[in-house]
Amino acid sequence: MKIGILGGGQLGRMLIQEALKYDDQFYTLDPAPDAPCHTISHFTQGNFNDYQTVMDFGKDKEVITIEIEHVHAGALAALEEQGVKVVPNSKIITIIQQKILQKEFYKAHDIPSPEFQVVRDWNEDITMPLPFVQKMNTGGYDGKGVQVIRTEEDLQKLWKEPSVLEALVDIDKELSVIVARNENGETKTFPVTEMVADPKLNLLDFNICPVHLNDDIAGQIDHITAKFLEAVNSPGLFAIELFLDKEGKVWVNETAPRLHNSGHQSQEGNANSQFEQMYRVVKNLPLADTDTMTYSGMLNLVGAEGHSGKVVYQGMEEVLKLPKTYVHLYGKTETKPGRKMGHINVLAESREELMDKLVKVKEMVKVIAG
Amino acid sequence: MKIGILGGGQLGRMLIQEALKYDDQFYTLDPAPDAPCHTISHFTQGNFNDYQTVMDFGKDKEVITIEIEHVHAGALAALEEQGVKVVPNSKIITIIQQKILQKEFYKAHDIPSPEFQVVRDWNEDITMPLPFVQKMNTGGYDGKGVQVIRTEEDLQKLWKEPSVLEALVDIDKELSVIVARNENGETKTFPVTEMVADPKLNLLDFNICPVHLNDDIAGQIDHITAKFLEAVNSPGLFAIELFLDKEGKVWVNETAPRLHNSGHQSQEGNANSQFEQMYRVVKNLPLADTDTMTYSGMLNLVGAEGHSGKVVYQGMEEVLKLPKTYVHLYGKTETKPGRKMGHINVLAESREELMDKLVKVKEMVKVIAG
Repeated sequence: MKIGILGGGQLGRMLIQEALKYDDQFYTLDPAPDAPCHTISHFTQGNFNDYQTVMDFGKDKEVITIEIEHVHAGALAALEEQGVKVVPNSKIITIIQQKILQKEFYKAHDIPSPEFQVVRDWNEDITMPLPFVQKMNTGGYDGKGVQVIRTEEDLQKLWKEPSVLEALVDIDKELSVIVARNENGETKTFPVTEMVADPKLNLLDFNICPVHLNDDIAGQIDHITAKFLEAVNSPGLFAIELFLDKEGKVWVNETAPRLHNSGHQSQEGNANSQFEQMYRVVKNLPLADTDTMTYSGMLNLVGAEGHSGKVVYQGMEEVLKLPKTYVHLYGKTETKPGRKMGHINVLAESREELMDKLVKVKEMVKVIAG
Repeated sequence: MKIGILGGGQLGRMLIQEALKYDDQFYTLDPAPDAPCHTISHFTQGNFNDYQTVMDFGKDKEVITIEIEHVHAGALAALEEQGVKVVPNSKIITIIQQKILQKEFYKAHDIPSPEFQVVRDWNEDITMPLPFVQKMNTGGYDGKGVQVIRTEEDLQKLWKEPSVLEALVDIDKELSVIVARNENGETKTFPVTEMVADPKLNLLDFNICPVHLNDDIAGQIDHITAKFLEAVNSPGLFAIELFLDKEGKVWVNETAPRLHNSGHQSQEGNANSQFEQMYRVVKNLPLADTDTMTYSGMLNLVGAEGHSGKVVYQGMEEVLKLPKTYVHLYGKTETKPGRKMGHINVLAESREELMDKLVKVKEMVKVIAG
């Protein structure tokens, strides 16, 4: 099957890598000429936010999917009109790529998500009590376009852009769950993972599975995933990012209509990975089993501060000596501060052993220019 | 690193697939324009048995490896002279690709292998007692170039080609072990697997791991792998195919200087696969841990008799519904009788469950033309 992917980054690369087990032809569209997918797929250099570029790319494909949500959703809708299958469909992409629509979607479908106020043209009164989080309607990614407003003085910092102002959750844990639905309506949920975010870059730091949750919390999450999978009414693989607050209530922070950094440990930690599942969603195949095989965790390999240029993974040879430790690089030749260059998955027999290994690996390796 | 592979078949494809976790550029050489590697590597169509073709292909690579042993070893020796690293080296490829040299190598290094007689020009008296196995010196592959001579009448069938005539072992089990050695001299051995051969096609049928062997047999195998890894004196990944006879003695049947069908279950069954290990050998990296994670087994997907043309995997959708069942297709569009089109790996909690699943899967799927 001719499968087109909008975006040619690491998520697409790992999807194609997994799908090499099957017999399909992958086509990718990305503005960067050396995008991670460019050597392993039929590659088109171009802007996935441009209507005509997406139309030209998509018109002869049997199915189009995304590995980034900031694409021209109008073009995807037009392709659907022409009979191209789009996974997930343009409607849910349109909703999720705009924070205002995303929040209204949760509200309409009774999916618990923090209280919020929509501001569009900044003539509105700000009724949201401090402290709150401003999330810009569009353009947010990897922590960009999001800021916390704590004080009256902070109000000066507000971006005068269409935004959601959202109640700040008193976070006990950040959790994530990857869910999938195929065209036949079959659904499958990955085990919940727990994230520890790097406060500076706001990129994921460690991501751990399984997480031991009491029945009440597990039940809330089951309720959310079921509601969400029903509400999207589209084939797709989605990441639901959750906050568990200090009173034991679970809130949806946000969702992504695609493969997600918080699912990377599934590559070695689960019976099948999120990439295998995404492939099956795209092809409308029976969904894969997602059982946890053992304790697993992931750390991102992020370009070190002060280093720009040809990448060197300092300490990597020592990492490769460790048992049940799996390096995944993204084929990016140039590092810069904060750039996601790869990740490392680790397996262990217990949560303690897992955390020890992750901390050890994080101290061993540094992404520098050389 | 620019890595060249002679051969662009499924073994190369799965090596490149695994190595997409790292940042290297793969180049492949194969006579078939639609070889399984052609879309996922820098592909050159050409004959790896032609001196000049191999020289032209290899001269600008940092390292050359093989995924088939029937290549122009003289060209590899010339590339070594020019400073290209060849893994495994041309000397051991030369030995293994000729059955006569291979048998003499075992004898010289005291590696137990069935008694044999070398016949070169067929003026020799045949002193090997019946029954015996004729193995042609060159050109044998997937059971071709090998025949059993049981009776006086069978002697008429002998191919008048340079050959080894080898004592027939009274086989209890066919075993295999994948071993690796890097340039630093580090070695690592995969757990032993057991094969059940299809008597008609002589391709592997099921391949199972782990195998429970008594201490004496395990000790014989350890002795063989240690001797072999010392004797080859080259970086490389090798498959050692073994016979366990009915008296409990282990014999080397033959070896392959490359990735091997008998190691495919390692993809999901071991902490790392033979493909990961091969990559590390090629790059002279620390070797990967090879622990058995659970019971694992593999069955080949072979083109059905009477079917030639565009391949259809009948029953595959049902297979994809089974938990811990992993389909690996090789990107070949045309099937023909006996052609290896893919394989399926299965994980299980016990040998009994494993065999049940393998038999079930084998009955579910058929490789036909449609």
